[in-house]
Amino acid sequence: MAAVLLGAPALATVKRFELVAQGSVFPVDEGVYVKGFSFNDMSPGPMLLVEEGDTVEIVLKNADSVAHGLSIHAANTQTSKFLGNVQPGEERIFRFTADFPGVFMYHCAPGGHGIMAHTMGGQHGMIVVEPKKKYRLEAELGRQPDLKLYIVQSEWYASGRDFFDGRATYVVFNGFNLRYVNEPIPVRPGDYVRIYFLNVGPSLTSTFHVVGGIWEYIYYQGNPDNVMKGSQTVLAGPSDSWVIEWRVPPVEGDYTLVTHVFNTAIKGALGILRAKKEAPRVGEVRAEGPKALAAIPADAKRVLDPYGLGIPDHDYTVRVPPDPAQGQPLAVGSRALESLPVRVQMVGNSFYPKVLEIPVGTTVEFVNEDVFDLLDGERTGRHDAVVIDVRGPEPFVTPKLGHADRYRITFTQPGEYTYICSIHPYMKGIIRVYAPVDRQANGSQPGHHH
Amino acid sequence: MAAVLLGAPALATVKRFELVAQGSVFPVDEGVYVKGFSFNDMSPGPMLLVEEGDTVEIVLKNADSVAHGLSIHAANTQTSKFLGNVQPGEERIFRFTADFPGVFMYHCAPGGHGIMAHTMGGQHGMIVVEPKKKYRLEAELGRQPDLKLYIVQSEWYASGRDFFDGRATYVVFNGFNLRYVNEPIPVRPGDYVRIYFLNVGPSLTSTFHVVGGIWEYIYYQGNPDNVMKGSQTVLAGPSDSWVIEWRVPPVEGDYTLVTHVFNTAIKGALGILRAKKEAPRVGEVRAEGPKALAAIPADAKRVLDPYGLGIPDHDYTVRVPPDPAQGQPLAVGSRALESLPVRVQMVGNSFYPKVLEIPVGTTVEFVNEDVFDLLDGERTGRHDAVVIDVRGPEPFVTPKLGHADRYRITFTQPGEYTYICSIHPYMKGIIRVYAPVDRQANGSQPGHHH
Amino acid sequence: MAAVLLGAPALATVKRFELVAQGSVFPVDEGVYVKGFSFNDMSPGPMLLVEEGDTVEIVLKNADSVAHGLSIHAANTQTSKFLGNVQPGEERIFRFTADFPGVFMYHCAPGGHGIMAHTMGGQHGMIVVEPKKKYRLEAELGRQPDLKLYIVQSEWYASGRDFFDGRATYVVFNGFNLRYVNEPIPVRPGDYVRIYFLNVGPSLTSTFHVVGGIWEYIYYQGNPDNVMKGSQTVLAGPSDSWVIEWRVPPVEGDYTLVTHVFNTAIKGALGILRAKKEAPRVGEVRAEGPKALAAIPADAKRVLDPYGLGIPDHDYTVRVPPDPAQGQPLAVGSRALESLPVRVQMVGNSFYPKVLEIPVGTTVEFVNEDVFDLLDGERTGRHDAVVIDVRGPEPFVTPKLGHADRYRITFTQPGEYTYICSIHPYMKGIIRVYAPVDRQANGSQPGHHH
Repeated sequence: MAAVLLGAPALATVKRFELVAQGSVFPVDEGVYVKGFSFNDMSPGPMLLVEEGDTVEIVLKNADSVAHGLSIHAANTQTSKFLGNVQPGEERIFRFTADFPGVFMYHCAPGGHGIMAHTMGGQHGMIVVEPKKKYRLEAELGRQPDLKLYIVQSEWYASGRDFFDGRATYVVFNGFNLRYVNEPIPVRPGDYVRIYFLNVGPSLTSTFHVVGGIWEYIYYQGNPDNVMKGSQTVLAGPSDSWVIEWRVPPVEGDYTLVTHVFNTAIKGALGILRAKKEAPRVGEVRAEGPKALAAIPADAKRVLDPYGLGIPDHDYTVRVPPDPAQGQPLAVGSRALESLPVRVQMVGNSFYPKVLEIPVGTTVEFVNEDVFDLLDGERTGRHDAVVIDVRGPEPFVTPKLGHADRYRITFTQPGEYTYICSIHPYMKGIIRVYAPVDRQANGSQPGHHH
Repeated sequence: MAAVLLGAPALATVKRFELVAQGSVFPVDEGVYVKGFSFNDMSPGPMLLVEEGDTVEIVLKNADSVAHGLSIHAANTQTSKFLGNVQPGEERIFRFTADFPGVFMYHCAPGGHGIMAHTMGGQHGMIVVEPKKKYRLEAELGRQPDLKLYIVQSEWYASGRDFFDGRATYVVFNGFNLRYVNEPIPVRPGDYVRIYFLNVGPSLTSTFHVVGGIWEYIYYQGNPDNVMKGSQTVLAGPSDSWVIEWRVPPVEGDYTLVTHVFNTAIKGALGILRAKKEAPRVGEVRAEGPKALAAIPADAKRVLDPYGLGIPDHDYTVRVPPDPAQGQPLAVGSRALESLPVRVQMVGNSFYPKVLEIPVGTTVEFVNEDVFDLLDGERTGRHDAVVIDVRGPEPFVTPKLGHADRYRITFTQPGEYTYICSIHPYMKGIIRVYAPVDRQANGSQPGHHH
Repeated sequence: MAAVLLGAPALATVKRFELVAQGSVFPVDEGVYVKGFSFNDMSPGPMLLVEEGDTVEIVLKNADSVAHGLSIHAANTQTSKFLGNVQPGEERIFRFTADFPGVFMYHCAPGGHGIMAHTMGGQHGMIVVEPKKKYRLEAELGRQPDLKLYIVQSEWYASGRDFFDGRATYVVFNGFNLRYVNEPIPVRPGDYVRIYFLNVGPSLTSTFHVVGGIWEYIYYQGNPDNVMKGSQTVLAGPSDSWVIEWRVPPVEGDYTLVTHVFNTAIKGALGILRAKKEAPRVGEVRAEGPKALAAIPADAKRVLDPYGLGIPDHDYTVRVPPDPAQGQPLAVGSRALESLPVRVQMVGNSFYPKVLEIPVGTTVEFVNEDVFDLLDGERTGRHDAVVIDVRGPEPFVTPKLGHADRYRITFTQPGEYTYICSIHPYMKGIIRVYAPVDRQANGSQPGHHH
């Protein structure tokens, strides 16, 4: 358990934060949960609020069973060497000075492939460096905002395949579907609102908008020098941020916050500012996800597990019927066609399909689609498939596969095999080998039809 | 039929517009049509052109059989309360002052889920607030542009599933595939052109470019204060806009307007500025779609209906072969595998797959993937499936399903069922239950093979 | 072989470049290759470096068997007329003055549909017009950068279908997966680095970032007047560019260059700046792909051919089982269901699926999904399917199909047919018609089951 002490001496204020990396079960909708990784059991993780010039001290603890790490976009200094590849049980201390004002992302960064794979699983958050220079509307009005609204937009995926293809299941503000529709944010007509908007992705673009409003001033990346005016939207790719200044119009009613990328808004990225004259003043809304759960509730109606097996797992069950060529070659002219293999991809730290049912006689071909196959452990996209629960006569172990490597296994008898990747043991898949109907009835050879 | 009068008194000029929401059939290519929703029977809808400081009066009429609404991005004031959830036959009047100059989007906004679902179906358009402050090139040249070119980029989808996944079938400028390739826009070498470019999405990003040109000045959101120089492209997410100033080079020829997001350009977002010395001066090109049709022509070769059934509907027919487990359990070791259900998603106000053919004995599982399941009517993403055309012994009605809710129906006899969502009655699907070949020949039990 | 001489007289310096368009085999990972088109046998093609005010002379030679062309975004003058639709063997000479400083894209542009289709296949590169005006950090420091780092981000696709859907197989910096992870770029702590970043797409967005750094100054499109400060990322759609100025922090270690669009970073767009005190000074890193190969190596483990057939071609083989309706109609009530056709799309200059295996009795329906069906040759998206290798009794030729046109062929006997599009002869597909198992054994009629 090594501690590394580093960086700038404590000239000015020292702001200290502790981040604990661990596995978590996130509530994301009523009865819907995601299994993933977190900092401090939330996704987005704890918001880190500092001021320009502060010395920031981060204590990073790995309370998980796999390596984690940290990239802090507010730090203009080497971080990979000091915060990368943090082993289970290990703790690191890191200091930097917050020289650049703005709204920044942080995320897990064990190294290499793991940077993307862990961020996808929920390990991200916002760090704000409040500038010394006043934002323009604050200068004009001579006062602080009535509401500081910190919003992280992020995506949830059901599998690595979906992640690769950009097919988010949910897109959320501060971690939960329609969070601020369920609990509208109270404001008063005329309120001066400052929004700190950060899109942590991991992959999709956002155009943040309010129905019934035009952003008065916008600041790319939150830097007060990067100012523009009069905007219906701000455009934010993954890890882009904006500070937005806006005054609630004098009319009561609901002002809907939304990403105008409507195929993501429709997946959950929508909330409400509810303007009433006597609304309570909440002062700030923090960009932190709801507290994670210790375990999946028994009455869950849906669980996404991007790396492993969701519940109900039949979401992902693919039952392959017998290849028409199975048992007896198909003829094309004088040439016989062999059975085609059924492919299982390793992709984005998951198997795809996750639950596969095949008839006896089928050849399964594992193919590693992950590109970053250098380094080791969480930092690599190398994968294997190793059976951990054997219910049949043909358990298997594949070699460790680099990118685009393939490995074939032919199953000749019924059985059921739960397997993991020994390098990323949270990756999980199932292969079930079934006996075709006729064979059972007749006792004939595998794949033969009477 | 209530009329609501609201907002700013008529200080300055009053600009009045009438928007009529209705169902429409849009021509989008030769022989290709889309069924959707419109304002004034066009998509994009009518262009609204006002000046900074104007009072704008919008009359919104709902001539459709479902609720509609309106969000106007040029209005920095409450709109949801006054223009949301407008019932069939209802009319609303709304006023606002155009305080912010620029190029803005408007779109249908009945509320909640319906905002995204109706915009996807074609209900969007451009409102321009001409600034009091001169754009830079106008100031430098001391004259108005020779051509004002208003362009809305938008997407057409074949289904809610495609919408969710960002798989547009077509991407168009002013509503029609290759519109300005078919009818190039005439300009003269040296012409001063001002382009008002608005990407209404609903989901994809655009980088607008002209082959043979570099944009001289660009203005984010069309605000004259947000100026940049010398740009090959402007980057616009959904609901982002730019004003662009450019002088046609002194050489005659075709200058191709294109989004440099090439997988969308290749789907139709491409046009031509044709520079000739003696070209007619058209003055302006308006950002409005072609007039919609009353009905689908008999010789249509393709019809997209994102919510309902396209023609030819076999575009969407999914014929599921008998599950290998049907009739007789498959064995995995000592365990029998049951038949897997076949899923029909409710997603983006459509069923997926839309036309499903299954063997007798199959269980269909309806799953609602729409996330916004609050509110009611057009504003909700709650769905059910209710048979309206019964040709078999097993018609069905599902309960109203919230997000991630599931409901199973097992079909035991042949039949054909056309069904809708009773909340969004334009959603339509078909389930056909067929009898397997052997069973018909032999009269044996469902799923049995001789 | 016509030569066109054109444009500005050689006032100032003349910078001359030769671009040769041809077919190429690109190495993109260890053992992984892409077949496509190139300029000068590289992708990205040769970097063109000029200074503001230069006269640029481009010699474009077509050494290929299909038409090519050129669009140069640094040229604010007609290019389509002079550099479009260049026939095999033809050569063109083109001059323009580089009036606009910045970082620009060039790419193949035969015209119309071919513009997008060829750029997707690898024909793109960077042209930099160094400004007369100093970038800000150079002015502040009073010296040139220690390192000029030119980076093109681009995508590789396995098929036109994947291109349409935005599903890149790889996303790379300067043409090769993880190129600068394999060979880190040496820098010294404190080095002043200027990055010329260009996203050539063709379709995806990038947010370019360095782990451990904050960009000090960023310039949209590389124009020194479009400056912003203190940014964790720069947002670049296809054909967007940025100049970035940054000083390597004083701490040794690896600084990882990455697009923060993480589902593309995980596909290869990741590199390393390795900071060591005694690192060699390389001065510049050029935005050019590795040299292409003359042929695919015998030990290739994967070949992508977006237009034709990859190796191993079973990557793309789709074996369709007999339709349950085949041979004997399925009944739905009193109505018989006919066999459904199996569709082959023409899409993005490829067939999809590329290798299709069907039982005798199957009807194949060719459908052209390419939208731009005007013009001719490489400039059109019209397609046909013409058999070139006949191994069966039913070779076929379809008519030339415009957008959304369909053509059906029913195969009644076994056979194997390799076919191309006669307009785009590098498009290739295979249809294999197989005889079902029982038929072979029993000699019964096609599709009959004893």
